[in-house]
Amino acid sequence: MDYDSFFKGALDDLRAQGNYRHFADLERHTGNFPQATHRSGTEERPVTIWCSNDYLGMGQHPKVLEAMHEALDRCGAGAGGTRNISGTTHDHVLLEAELADLHGKEAALLFTSGYVSNWAALGTLAAKIPDCVILSDALNHASMIEGMRHSRAQRVIWKHNDLADLEAHLQALPAGQPKIIAFESVYSMDGDIAPIAEICDLAEKYGAITYLDEVHAVGMYGPRGGGVAERDGVMDRVDIIQGTLGKAFGVVGGYITGSAEMVDFVRSFASGFIFTTALPPSVAAGAAASIKHLKQSSTERALQQQRVAELRAQLDQIGIPHIPNPSHIIPVMVGDPVKCKFISDQLMKTHGVYIQPINYPTVPKGTERLRITPSPVHSAKDVEHLVKALADLWSQCQLARMPQAAE
Amino acid sequence: MDYDSFFKGALDDLRAQGNYRHFADLERHTGNFPQATHRSGTEERPVTIWCSNDYLGMGQHPKVLEAMHEALDRCGAGAGGTRNISGTTHDHVLLEAELADLHGKEAALLFTSGYVSNWAALGTLAAKIPDCVILSDALNHASMIEGMRHSRAQRVIWKHNDLADLEAHLQALPAGQPKIIAFESVYSMDGDIAPIAEICDLAEKYGAITYLDEVHAVGMYGPRGGGVAERDGVMDRVDIIQGTLGKAFGVVGGYITGSAEMVDFVRSFASGFIFTTALPPSVAAGAAASIKHLKQSSTERALQQQRVAELRAQLDQIGIPHIPNPSHIIPVMVGDPVKCKFISDQLMKTHGVYIQPINYPTVPKGTERLRITPSPVHSAKDVEHLVKALADLWSQCQLARMPQAAE
Ligand SMILES: Cc1ncc(COP(=O)(O)O)c(C=O)c1O
Ligand SMILES: Cc1ncc(COP(=O)(O)O)c(C=O)c1O
Repeated sequence: MDYDSFFKGALDDLRAQGNYRHFADLERHTGNFPQATHRSGTEERPVTIWCSNDYLGMGQHPKVLEAMHEALDRCGAGAGGTRNISGTTHDHVLLEAELADLHGKEAALLFTSGYVSNWAALGTLAAKIPDCVILSDALNHASMIEGMRHSRAQRVIWKHNDLADLEAHLQALPAGQPKIIAFESVYSMDGDIAPIAEICDLAEKYGAITYLDEVHAVGMYGPRGGGVAERDGVMDRVDIIQGTLGKAFGVVGGYITGSAEMVDFVRSFASGFIFTTALPPSVAAGAAASIKHLKQSSTERALQQQRVAELRAQLDQIGIPHIPNPSHIIPVMVGDPVKCKFISDQLMKTHGVYIQPINYPTVPKGTERLRITPSPVHSAKDVEHLVKALADLWSQCQLARMPQAAE
Repeated sequence: MDYDSFFKGALDDLRAQGNYRHFADLERHTGNFPQATHRSGTEERPVTIWCSNDYLGMGQHPKVLEAMHEALDRCGAGAGGTRNISGTTHDHVLLEAELADLHGKEAALLFTSGYVSNWAALGTLAAKIPDCVILSDALNHASMIEGMRHSRAQRVIWKHNDLADLEAHLQALPAGQPKIIAFESVYSMDGDIAPIAEICDLAEKYGAITYLDEVHAVGMYGPRGGGVAERDGVMDRVDIIQGTLGKAFGVVGGYITGSAEMVDFVRSFASGFIFTTALPPSVAAGAAASIKHLKQSSTERALQQQRVAELRAQLDQIGIPHIPNPSHIIPVMVGDPVKCKFISDQLMKTHGVYIQPINYPTVPKGTERLRITPSPVHSAKDVEHLVKALADLWSQCQLARMPQAAE
């Protein structure tokens, strides 16, 4: 077999479908987020980033940077080993305590990423709990899907955020069979939010445990940034809360929290936790500083919500179509990979605005979109500039506007 | 089902078997590796770490730390997105170029860890290449095993480092079937090394591609630290070289290198690459600085080899049994999880020496060991102290010595 021709053929197919991905080479500037330099070949130009998942700009927060600098000087670059073999530093221990406290749980466990935490925790729990079945929301993230697939456990998919469908499936399963209900709070591509309390009701009724991915909510919802479950007052009813340190907390890494027994079980049996170098202590220290800050400060959350509201209102005024939702995510729908990429390219070239086109496999084909994430580091002027750029482009490309358009 | 009782039962079983793991809470001191502070409850005591995989002490190298500080100040803590959605920084681009150059390949691809790079790359290649079969060395690392398992591809296990067995399997497979031979260079627990050239001969003879995990060799073998394949002059014959940034390079992260097409294919299709936040730019910058330094400097490699030789010679002198091997890893065999843990505890308590006992599932039951990794940051005095501690303990515990013991 000619392996490289096979690879090339598959890549050509992607190109033909408009789904080949070009990564934008960017460099944000500390103290000046969301401004960045975009490099293409030898060309460099300034851009404003409008699609970062550093939702609150914590990646440039002085407390976070200071904690990272301090840890680097104190104990070096890497952890130097797996958690079991010399790689557990005091910064890991402190961060796990911080995370358990954030979610009001007995214990927490760190992973190298949110992806790995979902994959390893769900994969291990579903594989090891005898005869376990997972009830998985239809729009769950790839990392959960891979974890379930990995477990080889029975899997039941329920309709996205549909309580009746979930209950029908729960009812149809044997009462004594162990069950995990796996779902997210904020779904990152549409920005809709799960009915967590009602799912917990069903879990209790049918003897299931709940596994909640709060990746797009931690730091951002709830009075201490504990996520939507905190905001809704149901953190104590969710058995396992999973999150990331790489989005609103601005650093990198993932975790689960829950009962001491459950966490110790995953710690002891999850291959993806055991057989890998621990996160650098500076990463742990930076994440802990970020969490601590957002437990006490609601300024960033309030300002973010204000920017989101401003942008939504201004888009509505000029009829740019976006999915309404109760979260911080503004999906502007285009519905075609080639057009979506064209608009994104024009934004970058003509307006100094960077919004990555979102295409398959991140979203289903036909639902390609610009996913906009306003943050407290965007100014009111940034919002104005973005809206003007979109308006120009919508006219130039003769794209449809919403009927309520004032223009 | 009572989920927590189930977890507790499984943990009790581990405890009963002596396989329950306690993580040592450690803090190395920048500028003073391998010295660290060990915390237990409220107690703190100084220890010398003898089991780190920061093999060359690069985790405290001024160039690495400076690059990380600089990147933090320049562009912040996290990448702020997945590689596709705003998370590719210029530091990632530069590091990938550095890695491709290190291994003399067309391209390289970064992952959040060596674990994820093995899992995602092998998983994707074996799943997507039609009718692919993987020929896997019997002692391959968990991350490769999980990747193969994930792929659902046909898998053939060949006897560890056994060319005749590998060839027999290759011969038995249909000539036209796509084949990947997956193996490691330095096997981390026994410290033996694969016959890379001979495996490449077989791959060429039978139309297979080769996938080589150099996790325990990059930075440490070869004139520029390209690994055992570089040392042996066969880098260009290996199709895919995988490595980590978390061991000899002293930071965190993983990668693959190979043809532009293969790398672009994995970049485009691997879930574990696509759906996760990119490594922090400071991590990328630190790793690049480390690689650059070790490309030019052989001082660290030479000094490490000297310390390894010194420790081996002194262990031989007093008859402490260790597996002979051609690498930098010194496995002192104990063969019992409880004894192994006892010795490790005594080393820590009485001698200020930290060597984690290695037990199941990292090594097979019955082969429990102390795995010692001398490095250039250990002094000749550190070696003496360790040998004296082991000698005392061997006498105190009346453990068997090797016949050639001089004492
Ligand atoms: C819902 C969800 N879960 C998990 C992850 C993975 O988290 P991380 O980026 O920390 O790997 C992501 C995105 O990256 C996500 O969108
Ligand atoms: C052979 C081998 N491959 C891969 C890995 C994983 O690399 P990382 O620690 O970067 O996840 C390890 C150990 O951690 C290993 O020993």
